[in-house]
Amino acid sequence: MNAQREESDLIGSRGVPPDVYFGIHTLRARDNFPLTGVPLSAHPELVRALASVKEAAALAHGELATLPAARARAIVAACREIRAGGLRDQFVVDVFQGGAGTSSNMNVNEVIANRALELLGHPRGAYEHLHPNDDVNRGQSTNDVYPTAVKLALRDAAGRLMDGMSVLANALTDRGGAFAKTYKLGRTQLQDAVPMTLGHEFDVFALTVRDDAVLVQRAAEALCEVNLGGTAIGTGLNADPGFGRAVIVHLAAVTGAPVHQARDLMESTQGMGAFLQLSGAVRQFALRLSKICNDLRLLGSGPTAGLGEIRLPALQAGSSIMPGKVNPVVPEAVNQVCFDVFGADAAVSMAAQAGQLQLNAFEPLIAHLLLNSLNRLDSACRLLAERCVLGIEANEARLRDLVERSPGLATALNPVLGYQRTTDLARRSLLECRSVRELASESGLLTDEQIDVLLDHERLARPEL
Amino acid sequence: MNAQREESDLIGSRGVPPDVYFGIHTLRARDNFPLTGVPLSAHPELVRALASVKEAAALAHGELATLPAARARAIVAACREIRAGGLRDQFVVDVFQGGAGTSSNMNVNEVIANRALELLGHPRGAYEHLHPNDDVNRGQSTNDVYPTAVKLALRDAAGRLMDGMSVLANALTDRGGAFAKTYKLGRTQLQDAVPMTLGHEFDVFALTVRDDAVLVQRAAEALCEVNLGGTAIGTGLNADPGFGRAVIVHLAAVTGAPVHQARDLMESTQGMGAFLQLSGAVRQFALRLSKICNDLRLLGSGPTAGLGEIRLPALQAGSSIMPGKVNPVVPEAVNQVCFDVFGADAAVSMAAQAGQLQLNAFEPLIAHLLLNSLNRLDSACRLLAERCVLGIEANEARLRDLVERSPGLATALNPVLGYQRTTDLARRSLLECRSVRELASESGLLTDEQIDVLLDHERLARPEL
Amino acid sequence: MNAQREESDLIGSRGVPPDVYFGIHTLRARDNFPLTGVPLSAHPELVRALASVKEAAALAHGELATLPAARARAIVAACREIRAGGLRDQFVVDVFQGGAGTSSNMNVNEVIANRALELLGHPRGAYEHLHPNDDVNRGQSTNDVYPTAVKLALRDAAGRLMDGMSVLANALTDRGGAFAKTYKLGRTQLQDAVPMTLGHEFDVFALTVRDDAVLVQRAAEALCEVNLGGTAIGTGLNADPGFGRAVIVHLAAVTGAPVHQARDLMESTQGMGAFLQLSGAVRQFALRLSKICNDLRLLGSGPTAGLGEIRLPALQAGSSIMPGKVNPVVPEAVNQVCFDVFGADAAVSMAAQAGQLQLNAFEPLIAHLLLNSLNRLDSACRLLAERCVLGIEANEARLRDLVERSPGLATALNPVLGYQRTTDLARRSLLECRSVRELASESGLLTDEQIDVLLDHERLARPEL
Amino acid sequence: MNAQREESDLIGSRGVPPDVYFGIHTLRARDNFPLTGVPLSAHPELVRALASVKEAAALAHGELATLPAARARAIVAACREIRAGGLRDQFVVDVFQGGAGTSSNMNVNEVIANRALELLGHPRGAYEHLHPNDDVNRGQSTNDVYPTAVKLALRDAAGRLMDGMSVLANALTDRGGAFAKTYKLGRTQLQDAVPMTLGHEFDVFALTVRDDAVLVQRAAEALCEVNLGGTAIGTGLNADPGFGRAVIVHLAAVTGAPVHQARDLMESTQGMGAFLQLSGAVRQFALRLSKICNDLRLLGSGPTAGLGEIRLPALQAGSSIMPGKVNPVVPEAVNQVCFDVFGADAAVSMAAQAGQLQLNAFEPLIAHLLLNSLNRLDSACRLLAERCVLGIEANEARLRDLVERSPGLATALNPVLGYQRTTDLARRSLLECRSVRELASESGLLTDEQIDVLLDHERLARPEL
Repeated sequence: MNAQREESDLIGSRGVPPDVYFGIHTLRARDNFPLTGVPLSAHPELVRALASVKEAAALAHGELATLPAARARAIVAACREIRAGGLRDQFVVDVFQGGAGTSSNMNVNEVIANRALELLGHPRGAYEHLHPNDDVNRGQSTNDVYPTAVKLALRDAAGRLMDGMSVLANALTDRGGAFAKTYKLGRTQLQDAVPMTLGHEFDVFALTVRDDAVLVQRAAEALCEVNLGGTAIGTGLNADPGFGRAVIVHLAAVTGAPVHQARDLMESTQGMGAFLQLSGAVRQFALRLSKICNDLRLLGSGPTAGLGEIRLPALQAGSSIMPGKVNPVVPEAVNQVCFDVFGADAAVSMAAQAGQLQLNAFEPLIAHLLLNSLNRLDSACRLLAERCVLGIEANEARLRDLVERSPGLATALNPVLGYQRTTDLARRSLLECRSVRELASESGLLTDEQIDVLLDHERLARPEL
Repeated sequence: MNAQREESDLIGSRGVPPDVYFGIHTLRARDNFPLTGVPLSAHPELVRALASVKEAAALAHGELATLPAARARAIVAACREIRAGGLRDQFVVDVFQGGAGTSSNMNVNEVIANRALELLGHPRGAYEHLHPNDDVNRGQSTNDVYPTAVKLALRDAAGRLMDGMSVLANALTDRGGAFAKTYKLGRTQLQDAVPMTLGHEFDVFALTVRDDAVLVQRAAEALCEVNLGGTAIGTGLNADPGFGRAVIVHLAAVTGAPVHQARDLMESTQGMGAFLQLSGAVRQFALRLSKICNDLRLLGSGPTAGLGEIRLPALQAGSSIMPGKVNPVVPEAVNQVCFDVFGADAAVSMAAQAGQLQLNAFEPLIAHLLLNSLNRLDSACRLLAERCVLGIEANEARLRDLVERSPGLATALNPVLGYQRTTDLARRSLLECRSVRELASESGLLTDEQIDVLLDHERLARPEL
Repeated sequence: MNAQREESDLIGSRGVPPDVYFGIHTLRARDNFPLTGVPLSAHPELVRALASVKEAAALAHGELATLPAARARAIVAACREIRAGGLRDQFVVDVFQGGAGTSSNMNVNEVIANRALELLGHPRGAYEHLHPNDDVNRGQSTNDVYPTAVKLALRDAAGRLMDGMSVLANALTDRGGAFAKTYKLGRTQLQDAVPMTLGHEFDVFALTVRDDAVLVQRAAEALCEVNLGGTAIGTGLNADPGFGRAVIVHLAAVTGAPVHQARDLMESTQGMGAFLQLSGAVRQFALRLSKICNDLRLLGSGPTAGLGEIRLPALQAGSSIMPGKVNPVVPEAVNQVCFDVFGADAAVSMAAQAGQLQLNAFEPLIAHLLLNSLNRLDSACRLLAERCVLGIEANEARLRDLVERSPGLATALNPVLGYQRTTDLARRSLLECRSVRELASESGLLTDEQIDVLLDHERLARPEL
Repeated sequence: MNAQREESDLIGSRGVPPDVYFGIHTLRARDNFPLTGVPLSAHPELVRALASVKEAAALAHGELATLPAARARAIVAACREIRAGGLRDQFVVDVFQGGAGTSSNMNVNEVIANRALELLGHPRGAYEHLHPNDDVNRGQSTNDVYPTAVKLALRDAAGRLMDGMSVLANALTDRGGAFAKTYKLGRTQLQDAVPMTLGHEFDVFALTVRDDAVLVQRAAEALCEVNLGGTAIGTGLNADPGFGRAVIVHLAAVTGAPVHQARDLMESTQGMGAFLQLSGAVRQFALRLSKICNDLRLLGSGPTAGLGEIRLPALQAGSSIMPGKVNPVVPEAVNQVCFDVFGADAAVSMAAQAGQLQLNAFEPLIAHLLLNSLNRLDSACRLLAERCVLGIEANEARLRDLVERSPGLATALNPVLGYQRTTDLARRSLLECRSVRELASESGLLTDEQIDVLLDHERLARPEL
């Protein structure tokens, strides 16, 4: 009664458990790639995108009458269930797989076919009524379906990342405003330099994040050029006439994404340009976000033996052995996400370079790593914004003290006293541990009013340009 | 009745669900690092290794009487349950975490404490009877516990990988033997070169794998130098006298690993040398394994329009659109593992370089990525051996034909005919599509007996050195 | 008579050879950085760009009367000599240098000052008449001069690279046209797939190159946002009022580049965004160019035991031991440039990430590596176009034969015969080494006219979409 | 009279300038690879190593009588001149070259042949008396000569690097000794932790350098396994009987290196294992040296607004705009070398992975980048030792003050007061800016004698383990 159903392929036949929606191709793939233990379902964006492609194809076939209407409708219904989150546990093939995504495509074809068969009142496996290949995959090839779906999935994830980046940039801007009048000493090469505001420091961070979001945005736009319709190598062989154009129109409608057919379907089938552009954009942001986290950790170092300019919110006990220690755990965790993204980009690079002739067989790796990178960076942005940046406080007293005591302040007297006398002042300030202000006043070279003007923090931090 | 228990830390207090073994530190960490969704429990080697360290510490305290005997015994019992696979679902902190592993350490301290409390007949959370910090973590710091445990976990995984490499090398050697008399044309720069055997090709692959296993072995040995006993920064502050030495002895006994105390505990606390050495060894193997897969795919290209020298086993249908197509899916999947390992190594490199002063805060990333790389390469080796290499067959007819037709065979006549006449022969062979043997015979410069000797495949493929 | 002149700085005084234009700061830097042996002069674009910045500054000071007119004019004259290629051997500091480019800036300041002094009739070293710091560097800091000049230099080099890419793309398009009717078998995963034209293969390569040129173009545009005027950290401290705006106008005029002042001078001073974007674009092109070279080498493999579809021009003897061997040396060399660029990008990434607070001290490395990458890729493009691509010939007979013999051709019968019968045909074709055409004809399932239409190469290679 | 001599190869004939020692193959290669502008002669180790191989071959042929004695003697004499530094400007082929080193090998063959001809009293180009291929290259192939020479060259450079590392380690140990009694606060995660000595900090650096030298040493040993004798693909085809064994013996004698023939000449011809191992070792050192430089820059940050624990020697004026500023230029420059090495390793990795079948065509890149990395790291080590480390001074007053004021000192009271009271002390110390010592004394919980013992810096920094 609950017997396995028998399915067969070019290798032979095999029993399929009665309760699963996938079939023999998925079973074989599950056995063939026991590599990461991470199933396709770990990337819901990709499952949804694959279902979107299949739905668009069925709609196109319905329109062109290249599939019986009932079959097309059943496929569409199954796809919608999947897009709504249904049957998630049926997408079981490993994210690392040979075959350029064939196993993911077949997993989706089989689940849709069997669910559609159910909807049509047939038992699973009764492929004579609706076939995973001949019907669900009609007019398609893994080589156009899979890259198209990966692009849609990445576009989704990139959209969320851009939101996350915006949350982070806003948090940084919030601190920029809060500290707009908090004067501090700027540093170059970790050496004391000249005055600025702490607010400006955060404004710079915010601008960095916003600038990189523009690159992510551009990369997301490039993802909208898809090769659906190109079938095996981009020549469109065996696709029904008109299918290529129709399916793109439906795909845009189904997904709401401004997808369009590639200028050259063969280039789009083998080319990894859009993926590399995205990986490059995301990598750039990771590197710069890492620098921001490094700076936050440095500015917050201490509490007494560090720079101690800012206080990060305390989130958890920092040490089991050192009582009262609080560590910058959120920036540290974000640093790790950034390093992870850097590594993923290196792997994507190598995979992209390794494509040969009309196909890149390594797209499953590219898809997996890029989706991870986008999603982890998104989480990292929100985490950093909400559990760190928004709670940062300035150590006002210390900031003021460091500016006042800094020999670097002598720089501001340079235009009036000249380089030589200023250098002497700076040197004495350091050696005698006395402020430049005090020494300048004592020197009689300047009146106290002049000194007040020249060393006014506000003027120094935001001179007219 | 099933009310939450209240726990507190330096941030404040918080309710803990009644059914969990972890406590407030773990709860906070789980909230603080919603980054990958991959919990600590995804690395059973690391959970086991952390429990081993805690067991060794309790045994040392028992021996030194620095913990009450009953407490020490209860801790040991709890650790053994965990090492045997118990309580696995209690290790919930994200693998990416700030704090240099503090959250993993505290997760383990809390689970052990609460399980030990149960064993002692106390309710969970009754830390006055046995405390996660004061007892389970006694004489320890995350900064010595965590790196020590990570090294033990990596050593475990490296051991499995070495087994996997051995399985692969043996499979390659098996084919080396099977093809020891199968002559073929060698290629340099993808251009026809001179004869060799197909067996030699596989023997070379096998030697590559075995050589890299030696590097993994050396790296695994370096992992045995641990900093346990160094506490916060390697000075051993607050550890009970004698604890440092005792705990290492117990750790060796508990794990069976030849661990020994680092030559300089401070260096070992901050230094990422052992991790980088392992990452470098594994990266080297990944790069060379990728080359082997590339070669297998190239030699198996075709069936008619490629090199077609070998046939890889057919494991699954290769295409939904191209009937009968079979793809080299296993080498392709292994290539992806290799690229992934390459990327992980780049991330590990950046994390290792980013350490500052007395600690590297990014060890959780290093641990996660290296464990993944070792385990995935291990799976890849076995997969490649069992589902690909052992089933490879030679296309004997084609191999023989390619040697015979090759203008490159003229090289073998060089010592007798001289460079100029040989070059002419090679050129004519190519232009006229006639074999070197035929042209040489026709030329009258050599007798057929001479030609037979000079062009004997066996002599050419394995000349005396 | 030819005595050294004495110069001094905050470290002390030192003799300077009488015949050099540089001074004590350059001398010290030359001693301090004996690292690569590659002098600043190895990057003429950078020397020119630095002189352009200095010329623009002198013009701005002339306009604002913040420098005596004679001094400003002498500085301008010296800068023009340098921009025209003069004094090249005076730029001697190592390309790797600490100080974020200070040594390069001081080298340029000193050479300009001494040459300007000469023009004014003073001896070298008579800095009381015109000072490297107070006059040539007036209103500037290394931290705004150097990044601005590096951007200008990179923009120059990127412009040349775009020309080189255009040369390469045109050569590829030329071959695309030449082979527009040359039918061949496409390959996916190195396995025989379906028909296409050799021309299309080259058209795809050309499109790849053109697409990546767009990314380089965008990155070059981002380089036009400069921080000149920001002085030490981007606050413009000590710059004369109005200088910031004036100098940018003059810089645009001097260089002809549409430079504009950064939206936030502090962000632009510390941010490595423009460099990372360029590095990412160039890296992407390198990876994809490497894939093109891999394909050319693969398609040209043989002559008899490889794919043998195309013939690359013979440029040099390929082997000292194998007579008549010709290797694909140009694509191989280009591959190496690509790998080098990939590595340079990794180094640039790490350097960019390592910036701290208000400055990135590692810009000299970034400048050196990016200039190398751009220039080497430019040379590689032209080399590949002129010495390889334009001379590529198709092996027409072999290409035709491979299509005809391919079991993959059965795919084209799929829509008529159905998946099952087509699979059988494909299998028999492979096993019996007979063409699909022959077997189909023999089967009686299709008339020869039908077969001719279905297997028509032109239809298969460019079906209607 | 000064007419060009005519030479020919399989491409055709060509005039060679009368005054050069190289011939047509070198001329063609120079034209074919206008990529970096860096000639082979930029790597004197490699030129010397190639000449050593040729000398060993001639000696072997002399011994086996497979070359006329006079020719063999003339070749040996020419090789000795080159090894002594002669004819350096004759090695003109670009370091990036296709052909797996063929052009470098032919450049060397031609220069040796023409110089040997001169020594024999013949004009250059009279190859009938002594031929670059038939005589100088007799029994050899680029594919065994070039990798063997590259390994020898790298071993040379690695030897120098090990010396440089030793110089650096000794300098660090010197400071370790000088600061053995200088107590300071250790930091974890940039947060104040517990006491240690500044000397220990430098001892840790020294140990890091010494440990990595062991890895370089091991990699250098692996370089001694060479494939000379294997000719084209490692089968030894066309080598005279006995040549393979004899040439290795002579090579060991000529170079003084313990070279030995590879276990499998074919593996050694195609395998990049030794290069990857060296690149990995060097990369590891670069990453860890970069961390040391980061720490030095951090500890030396200030002078007033940074950590300010140490003073690096002032080597040059740090800023043209900020009087008196001195920057850590040497560590910054060394950081750049480290980043460069990291990038080179990425390029080497990609090149190593890209080898195909019986050869890796990209060895010239690998050789160039590894030689650069080794030599630059060697220079960096010596520079860092001599111009920075040895001149480092401790800021004793500040170091002492930071320990005394640190709330982290409370950790030392933990074993006596317990975690809770200690946490309170630490918190009050931070909030009230009062020392733990003062608060502990005031609390009455401990006598001043107890406090003195517990907070004794020496005890804290070096507790018994």
